[in-house]
Amino acid sequence: MQQTLDKTVEHIGRRAKKAAYALQSVSEKKIEAALYTTARLLDTEASSLQKENRRDLRAARDRGLPPAMIDRLTLSDSTVAAMARGLREVAAMDSPIGTEYEHRVRPNGLSICKVKVPIGVVGIIYEARPNVTVDAAAICLKSQNAVVLRGGSEAFRSNRALISLFKKAIAKAKLPSDAVQMIPTVDRRAVELLLQKDDLIDLIIPRGGEELIRTVVEKSRIPVIKHYKGVCHVYIAASADIDKAVGIAVNAKVQRPGVCNAMETLLLDAKLPRAKRRVVIDALLENGVALIGDSATRKLSSRIKEATVEDWKAEYLDLRLAVRTVKNLAEAIDHINTYGSHHTDAIVTGSKREAAAFIQQVDSSSVMVNASTRFSDGGEYGMGCEIGISTDKLHARGPMGVADLTTYKWIVYGSGQVRG
Amino acid sequence: MQQTLDKTVEHIGRRAKKAAYALQSVSEKKIEAALYTTARLLDTEASSLQKENRRDLRAARDRGLPPAMIDRLTLSDSTVAAMARGLREVAAMDSPIGTEYEHRVRPNGLSICKVKVPIGVVGIIYEARPNVTVDAAAICLKSQNAVVLRGGSEAFRSNRALISLFKKAIAKAKLPSDAVQMIPTVDRRAVELLLQKDDLIDLIIPRGGEELIRTVVEKSRIPVIKHYKGVCHVYIAASADIDKAVGIAVNAKVQRPGVCNAMETLLLDAKLPRAKRRVVIDALLENGVALIGDSATRKLSSRIKEATVEDWKAEYLDLRLAVRTVKNLAEAIDHINTYGSHHTDAIVTGSKREAAAFIQQVDSSSVMVNASTRFSDGGEYGMGCEIGISTDKLHARGPMGVADLTTYKWIVYGSGQVRG
Repeated sequence: MQQTLDKTVEHIGRRAKKAAYALQSVSEKKIEAALYTTARLLDTEASSLQKENRRDLRAARDRGLPPAMIDRLTLSDSTVAAMARGLREVAAMDSPIGTEYEHRVRPNGLSICKVKVPIGVVGIIYEARPNVTVDAAAICLKSQNAVVLRGGSEAFRSNRALISLFKKAIAKAKLPSDAVQMIPTVDRRAVELLLQKDDLIDLIIPRGGEELIRTVVEKSRIPVIKHYKGVCHVYIAASADIDKAVGIAVNAKVQRPGVCNAMETLLLDAKLPRAKRRVVIDALLENGVALIGDSATRKLSSRIKEATVEDWKAEYLDLRLAVRTVKNLAEAIDHINTYGSHHTDAIVTGSKREAAAFIQQVDSSSVMVNASTRFSDGGEYGMGCEIGISTDKLHARGPMGVADLTTYKWIVYGSGQVRG
Repeated sequence: MQQTLDKTVEHIGRRAKKAAYALQSVSEKKIEAALYTTARLLDTEASSLQKENRRDLRAARDRGLPPAMIDRLTLSDSTVAAMARGLREVAAMDSPIGTEYEHRVRPNGLSICKVKVPIGVVGIIYEARPNVTVDAAAICLKSQNAVVLRGGSEAFRSNRALISLFKKAIAKAKLPSDAVQMIPTVDRRAVELLLQKDDLIDLIIPRGGEELIRTVVEKSRIPVIKHYKGVCHVYIAASADIDKAVGIAVNAKVQRPGVCNAMETLLLDAKLPRAKRRVVIDALLENGVALIGDSATRKLSSRIKEATVEDWKAEYLDLRLAVRTVKNLAEAIDHINTYGSHHTDAIVTGSKREAAAFIQQVDSSSVMVNASTRFSDGGEYGMGCEIGISTDKLHARGPMGVADLTTYKWIVYGSGQVRG
């Protein structure tokens, strides 16, 4: 049984590798056409897609999955329309593939440059949301990578229906048929087997909760780009405009608390007048945020519970917030670099000097000045779409889009040169 | 004992991390000054350095190390001078750190860009050659990374002496004193302990034989950039200028056969006239190259031994060469992608169309047209120096220099924007 499963996974990997080689030399026009066709199929075949989705939803309800998960699993009319819109946006983007750069001519006449090429085969491992299927397949196809998708078992039928639309579009555009594949089983061991195929898969991107991502990193022999969690900070400096500070702090925590770019710890500068600090605290409390703070902060309100060091590391993902009073910018930066997750951190300040020091010294994938951490997102950054957010430092950092799924080769043109 | 060693390694890692944070905001001028001072110290303290080196050499001879290793270990006057010259070259290079790029202003007024920043702490694990100590420390320092060096035990005293020169220069330039450190023991377990410190070290670059690199990859929890080996190909197409083909084939194999960018397999197109194929074979035989070939190639000379599939995968690193006759360009590309190491592969051709197909379809870090594979090297590519060659596809590919030891952060400037 295990052996049959391994054969299945191996076979998918080999076909993906072959498709990846073929994709290296297809035209951008064909890729574009396949993406537009998929978008059109989403429009025209929405009802049969939603029929498959309802089967997933019924099974999910029977299994008693929580409403939040049911919500993420649902392919409503507006979700389907948004997926089609996303596909058209990706299709319309300029392709980075084939771009030559860093040209140089050496004294011996060798002409050298780098050229952007696809990475090869990308494996995406994710949880319930079927829209990840469309985003990931679209970004991989646009960057001329073959993709192997492995979504959550809850969304199996929805994902299979979505991929069949891609398959139709790929066939119509005469692209390699294995450019987009999914693991055709909900057996969890298939993921472990996939993660061993470092000769066939070039990159793994896991998307989901911290536990899923830790498991993938631990078991993978293939390079993984990921973020474990988002422990994002807003530091309000003494020079901050207090109205902006309140707006940013409330937005960063309240607008969508369950996502990785929501604020988890607020840092208040001790030199910020006490009255202003209270305004911030009161605004958060009024917005239903439960506060956990250090002793200095707790003096601002009797409604703040006592924090431990675990709170500085916590990703609450709900309307709870850790608050700490720091004595200056240096202590704020030190707190962020020590307890944060290197995802996204913001300063609210009126001082250019403070902003510059914060930018330079905070070791995070996104550093913001006078803006809400919630903007840390491929769409908000103008990348059209994103395939994930990286808190790694190698290859890609922060929101990742089409260009992040490319690598390069060095091209050397000679006329018979040999090395002396 | 193991516990004490772990404490030592942990302590080095912590100091490196702290130095790395401090290095984020030092001036380029200080870095330059430290590199020039180290170069000057190499000039003025060459004799005490060579005294330490002689102690390593005596021990190496006593242990009966092979002459090739003794040779690589020796710090002759010209080796020391070359190291000093290399340092001055690195010092004089433009620094990538702090460069802002990909600026954009979003409709909501957010101003977004990426800025080049150091990776953090780089660990270098290498074998006998003490000049790697200088190259690696210089490139890491230039890119404002802290470095932890672990050289071969044979070169322990030489490396310690070289690092003490860096330490003096770093102190003089008032840079963080732990910017350059070495593991102060030859105990092999220290490497294993270092490779577990993924909270302190950001990147590992191993340099040495395939066995060392496989061990490092297997044991490391930290991302590794590396190449295992160089199985480089030269494919001679039917349209090749035969004089260029002979020059390139002989140079790629003979000029320095023991290195990773030397040719290991020659591919001859069956449509290349038999007489021309013989000219290539004879030239290689005349240059003392032992040939191993497939049956079609063996018809060209009785001096060609029979090849097995193992020869297509072999990295001989000496004057042996596998030769295969392929029926066309597609078969050559397929051979290279199947058996090669994705390091450096060359085509000799008179056809632009063939060259373009080879460039597009060969999945290697460097692809060359009418030039010897021996040019695949940071110095030859005009990068000033190199810290290694990557056959990985993520982060850096091919020769790696100062710019490859950087990552980026996203910087977002707002004026109080919140997400709607």
